[in-house]
Amino acid sequence: MDIIHYQKDFLQYLESKQWIKEPKNLYEPIDYIIQLGGKRMRPILTLMAADIFSKDYKKAMPAALAVEVFHNFTLIHDDIMDDAPLRRGKETVHEKWNLNTGILSGDAMLILAYQYFENYEPIVFQKLAKLFSKTALEVCDGQQLDVDFEVRNDVTIDEYINMIRLKTSVLVAAALKMGAIVAETNEENANLIYDFGLNLGLAFQLQDDYLDTFGNPKTFGKQVGGDIIENKKTFLYLKALMVANSDDKQKLAFYYHQKLEENSTKISEVKKIFELNNIPNLIKEQIQYYTDKSFETLSKMNIDKVSKQNLKDFGLWLMNRSV
Amino acid sequence: MDIIHYQKDFLQYLESKQWIKEPKNLYEPIDYIIQLGGKRMRPILTLMAADIFSKDYKKAMPAALAVEVFHNFTLIHDDIMDDAPLRRGKETVHEKWNLNTGILSGDAMLILAYQYFENYEPIVFQKLAKLFSKTALEVCDGQQLDVDFEVRNDVTIDEYINMIRLKTSVLVAAALKMGAIVAETNEENANLIYDFGLNLGLAFQLQDDYLDTFGNPKTFGKQVGGDIIENKKTFLYLKALMVANSDDKQKLAFYYHQKLEENSTKISEVKKIFELNNIPNLIKEQIQYYTDKSFETLSKMNIDKVSKQNLKDFGLWLMNRSV
Repeated sequence: MDIIHYQKDFLQYLESKQWIKEPKNLYEPIDYIIQLGGKRMRPILTLMAADIFSKDYKKAMPAALAVEVFHNFTLIHDDIMDDAPLRRGKETVHEKWNLNTGILSGDAMLILAYQYFENYEPIVFQKLAKLFSKTALEVCDGQQLDVDFEVRNDVTIDEYINMIRLKTSVLVAAALKMGAIVAETNEENANLIYDFGLNLGLAFQLQDDYLDTFGNPKTFGKQVGGDIIENKKTFLYLKALMVANSDDKQKLAFYYHQKLEENSTKISEVKKIFELNNIPNLIKEQIQYYTDKSFETLSKMNIDKVSKQNLKDFGLWLMNRSV
Repeated sequence: MDIIHYQKDFLQYLESKQWIKEPKNLYEPIDYIIQLGGKRMRPILTLMAADIFSKDYKKAMPAALAVEVFHNFTLIHDDIMDDAPLRRGKETVHEKWNLNTGILSGDAMLILAYQYFENYEPIVFQKLAKLFSKTALEVCDGQQLDVDFEVRNDVTIDEYINMIRLKTSVLVAAALKMGAIVAETNEENANLIYDFGLNLGLAFQLQDDYLDTFGNPKTFGKQVGGDIIENKKTFLYLKALMVANSDDKQKLAFYYHQKLEENSTKISEVKKIFELNNIPNLIKEQIQYYTDKSFETLSKMNIDKVSKQNLKDFGLWLMNRSV
């Protein structure tokens, strides 16, 4: 089965759901954010894992939906915290409605996510809800660390990797493991596919850091240079602080203390510092490291060749965004 | 067993928990709101119900904690939505920290609440989590209706009762039913104790409306007249609009469109209109109606006399706040 097929089936399942009910002001924003689109990467992973371990991926639809609804809940609350006006080119929920709606509709989505697990019998239900709670709390931890890092000047690369692991990767990993749980495969397979996702998630987030600065504006979904404009301490910045000479470090510190109206000079100067210090290659090495690590896990898994190739193809599809 | 004993045991259980861990900025606000106090009425109900149906109330501690942590999550997010500076005489979380902390720590508490159910085996776990999700979503619905009512001028008494049922009573009812679920009593008992709580919750909230305007400032926990200052459309206001003559209605409408610095005249004038129209007696009748209804449910329950008396005593303790 190819990725597009899972995606299509999941979208059809999404369409079949009636999102809007009373009170409308609570559920319309939920419908809005769910319909905003996105690659639906996390639910696809849940379906794919269920398919690999049980050949019955339809059974995993409610779990896949839980993951997608949770992910969208985090988008609503994160957009409030980042004061972001746009999401996927459209107004964010708190912009289109207001702060209170953003908070409350988000809360409702977190609860809805748990409700989708009620489609499974008690033992599977408990396994799913347990993994989900652990993961959701880790995502909160990661978001808090991200906020904390904004005002810290001594963030290490290890701390940064730990933050993106919590904020992004654990959900990718859990999405896969949920498919494995629904398929009732053994503990070992479930843990291996979790590890596959965890490392793929790290590679994906590091690639996002790279593309945010060096991506092609025509194909990258967000504004190229956005992280530089926002003075985000990504892998690029932290690595540059480690390897650059004191002159470049001072320049970086200078630019990362500015909030400007017009950012083209800032972006090009910071890019130049990154390039002079070989940062693009250093981050590519890291992306490769985590991608390799993730593919290595595949070889340990007790599944057929075709399934391994499917997972690898997904990894390649995910990582093969225009650079 | 008396109420104070359950309360003491629950507080001891609370004390035994280590709330603060890394990242501190996420968990310190959780510790803060949990330590702020309150009567711990909801967890007491969970313990009491478990005691009645199984004589083992300690087994219900994690479920009781889930209810209390959920309740405190709603306080944090509601305080943001109401822009409230104080909670139990102390700074609210978003005031003491900031908006983002209030949102994120609240989110984490909602997830933590679900985690406490992991102390139970799968079948009980699923029953608890299901009831909890249903209830939590109803509380969101109720909060949304409360927000919606602020800008509506055609709210009926029935709509108001439905709103407070969702916003307040279902959690009281669910707290009791969770104790029944942990005790593994039969479905009928579990539903009857839920109904007992639902009606008691309605009586309690209506009494809160009454006390907010006619309570004794020395013994009522909050500022007497607060609802009038905030132009809250409580039962008192809605009932007055129904029964008053057009002159009094106009006066009420006049006062409820004002936001003042000095409120003593507004409070005394509105109180006068309520009194002239017999509203205090009309609300007392309603409080009595729901209290009676709640006590009637007790008579249908298949439990011993002492247990019935304990539940009744709790109801009387709860309702016996100074008037």
